[in-house]
Amino acid sequence: MAAPADLTVVDLSTADLHPAVDDPALNSMNFLNEVAQHYPDAVSLAAGRPYEEFFDVAALHRYLDTFRRHLADDLGLTPAQVHRTLFQYGRTKGVVHHLVARNLAVDEGIGVDPEAIVVTVGCQEAMFLVLRALRTGPGDVLLAVAPTYVGLTGAARLLDLPVRPVAGGPAGVDLADLRAQVRRARADGLRPRACYLMPDFANPSGTSVGLADRRRLLALAEAEDLLLLEDNPYGLFPAGDAERVPTLKALDTGRRVVYLGSFAKTVLPGARVGYVVADQRVAGADGTVGLLADQLAKIKSMVTVNTSAIAQAVIGGALLEHGCSLVAATVRERAAYTRNLRHLVAGLARRFPADASPVRWNVPAGGFFVVVTVPFPVDDALLHRSAREYGLLWTPMAHFYDAGAPVDALRLSVSAVTPAEIDLGLDRLAALVADELARRCASGPVA
Amino acid sequence: MAAPADLTVVDLSTADLHPAVDDPALNSMNFLNEVAQHYPDAVSLAAGRPYEEFFDVAALHRYLDTFRRHLADDLGLTPAQVHRTLFQYGRTKGVVHHLVARNLAVDEGIGVDPEAIVVTVGCQEAMFLVLRALRTGPGDVLLAVAPTYVGLTGAARLLDLPVRPVAGGPAGVDLADLRAQVRRARADGLRPRACYLMPDFANPSGTSVGLADRRRLLALAEAEDLLLLEDNPYGLFPAGDAERVPTLKALDTGRRVVYLGSFAKTVLPGARVGYVVADQRVAGADGTVGLLADQLAKIKSMVTVNTSAIAQAVIGGALLEHGCSLVAATVRERAAYTRNLRHLVAGLARRFPADASPVRWNVPAGGFFVVVTVPFPVDDALLHRSAREYGLLWTPMAHFYDAGAPVDALRLSVSAVTPAEIDLGLDRLAALVADELARRCASGPVA
Repeated sequence: MAAPADLTVVDLSTADLHPAVDDPALNSMNFLNEVAQHYPDAVSLAAGRPYEEFFDVAALHRYLDTFRRHLADDLGLTPAQVHRTLFQYGRTKGVVHHLVARNLAVDEGIGVDPEAIVVTVGCQEAMFLVLRALRTGPGDVLLAVAPTYVGLTGAARLLDLPVRPVAGGPAGVDLADLRAQVRRARADGLRPRACYLMPDFANPSGTSVGLADRRRLLALAEAEDLLLLEDNPYGLFPAGDAERVPTLKALDTGRRVVYLGSFAKTVLPGARVGYVVADQRVAGADGTVGLLADQLAKIKSMVTVNTSAIAQAVIGGALLEHGCSLVAATVRERAAYTRNLRHLVAGLARRFPADASPVRWNVPAGGFFVVVTVPFPVDDALLHRSAREYGLLWTPMAHFYDAGAPVDALRLSVSAVTPAEIDLGLDRLAALVADELARRCASGPVA
Repeated sequence: MAAPADLTVVDLSTADLHPAVDDPALNSMNFLNEVAQHYPDAVSLAAGRPYEEFFDVAALHRYLDTFRRHLADDLGLTPAQVHRTLFQYGRTKGVVHHLVARNLAVDEGIGVDPEAIVVTVGCQEAMFLVLRALRTGPGDVLLAVAPTYVGLTGAARLLDLPVRPVAGGPAGVDLADLRAQVRRARADGLRPRACYLMPDFANPSGTSVGLADRRRLLALAEAEDLLLLEDNPYGLFPAGDAERVPTLKALDTGRRVVYLGSFAKTVLPGARVGYVVADQRVAGADGTVGLLADQLAKIKSMVTVNTSAIAQAVIGGALLEHGCSLVAATVRERAAYTRNLRHLVAGLARRFPADASPVRWNVPAGGFFVVVTVPFPVDDALLHRSAREYGLLWTPMAHFYDAGAPVDALRLSVSAVTPAEIDLGLDRLAALVADELARRCASGPVA
């Protein structure tokens, strides 16, 4: 929020601060939040927040108690040790790591040493720690499947780590382009430290990588000696009864994958608890061999010390109440997201018939997001007009491309709305598109 | 924790990671924790944790409820808004900022716009965000009063920001040396971005800066165009009935001070909630003027998104239950710390009489820490011997100096022990010192 206008004495300028503060990636979320705050009555098909109907304050208290009892009854801690675990500074790598490991075994078939897990302040800190570890100097570069989650791009900006896009495409990742980008970076004298992607119902594209391509991707990572950063916030939400595809980490036999996990969509965002699985073996300067997780923990100790034990206790309790299965814990949510995704896709088809409208969209197999392609550039000005004149919020896809070039697409989210709001939102989108097409026809041919 | 010894296949080496992971500052806490874990039965005069006797699980639940009612009753939020505040992604700058501002007014006489506060994941994240904002390139340098809290040094390492020491001395900061260091840095073509210090009962030195020196320090900061980073975790704990000295921020009329706050010692560490007051006015690239807090929030959005709302609710509830006065909330703790500090100092005097012993120590006016000077170097090997042979833990002062040179001093902490443990610990310290002196006499004159 800007200071009152009469503050004419200035102490600093953003030019005195790290250049990231003026970067579009760091200003994107701010901008989108400001638009949303400015039009509080608009229908929001922008917010990627989880569904709110099932939030329950009593559950918070219950989760805390469940975890407290687990410490005493299952782990055999004394009352003093229980207090210390909940109230004091704690283990840098976290106190629910054993439950996270059990969850990964139960829901994902991932077998991992709990010591290879670092519990973080949301998945964002997990990304930040990994990028901090991997960026050693100006010769390092990160690859990321485009369009890219803006939180990844922003974290990289803060660390002066360039991000080079890899084509995503309808299959989720263009493997030929990935190989080409690795080789191009190396030819440029740069070291591609990793490739970041969301293989399941990606934000913002909604696309997923198929099983065969997952295997090919792992083989490529092995052949090119590349780490993969697998971010999986939406994997538990396939639409309907669709089978889930194994994660890269579940298929990873060569420790090529650093797995980034989130409880924001499966339990609640307000806890700010996520994690990273980093089982890579790292040789220390003294010749000992440890886990990448331990190097990340050292970094974490200087960023946030440790993740709030109280927040971890809430997540731990939620895991314990469902036998560490978040599939079991999110049956209602999955049904709501499925209903909404199908409602949105059907609603798009009704309003933009293929034979009469130039508007197109993808049909994701799950998750929160659908990308709608329109025959005109979608920029922030259009979003402002949509909010002001039509009472509708969405996200310009340009925010997810680093180049800043205009993109003829927008992202719709189905996660935090009702079917009635989707209907209202799509009616407004249809009116906006019709108006925009009419304007453009009036002023000349569509580009 | 190291992987099992039979893991001979190595994926990476620490040389492939950011150099900070091999830096002493990032390994110091790990090393000290490992020693403590290895000797769980040792008396610890090392741990800087707060007193544990008053921790109370029922209070956690009550705090959550108190804050929830505050949202509904005082702020007028609807039930849906209350749920959203506690469960969803939230305001980057936090949701207890208004209570923090009230606390600063009540306890510190600091008047600050709540918008100038960023609630952070402990004070560590506050330091990290400020250093990230201030470090723009290799020409920047940070000054820090030595000995220096290792968390500050570690955060600076992660950001490739060199830290130059400023002499502390018995007055807490040597103003002549500060001026000299500012000028030396500039003569070296470097930009000193700020000077970090703890003016109250510093960790590790225990020293405090007097009121007259605080005013001189602010004048010097103005004259030299320098920011001051004031870290104040212990200020509420003067020994006995001693008056508290106003913070630098309370005396700061020129927005020279960025104030770093912690609830770890006044409420509980397990919440991981701290904050930064950053009311400096920053001109943006577009000519608008905002607060430094808003630039820090942009950075925070890419490090941890926002601080756990559940953790904030616990702190918010604790503040509300005491009229936002942590002075009122910590009457029992202050009495315990006073008792312990006096007990330690008296115990040192009994065991090391001035006319018969070369051991010396300072007598802090409050806080958690006393520095004991001995006539021999205190290194990690001596700590190991102390733990193994005497069952006593303390902290080598060398860990708080960047140079890594041996220091003839150790830090004792009184915060998480009983008087009986202090007695036992000091008996063991006296035995260790006597043994060490005898060894050194046997092998030649003391250096």
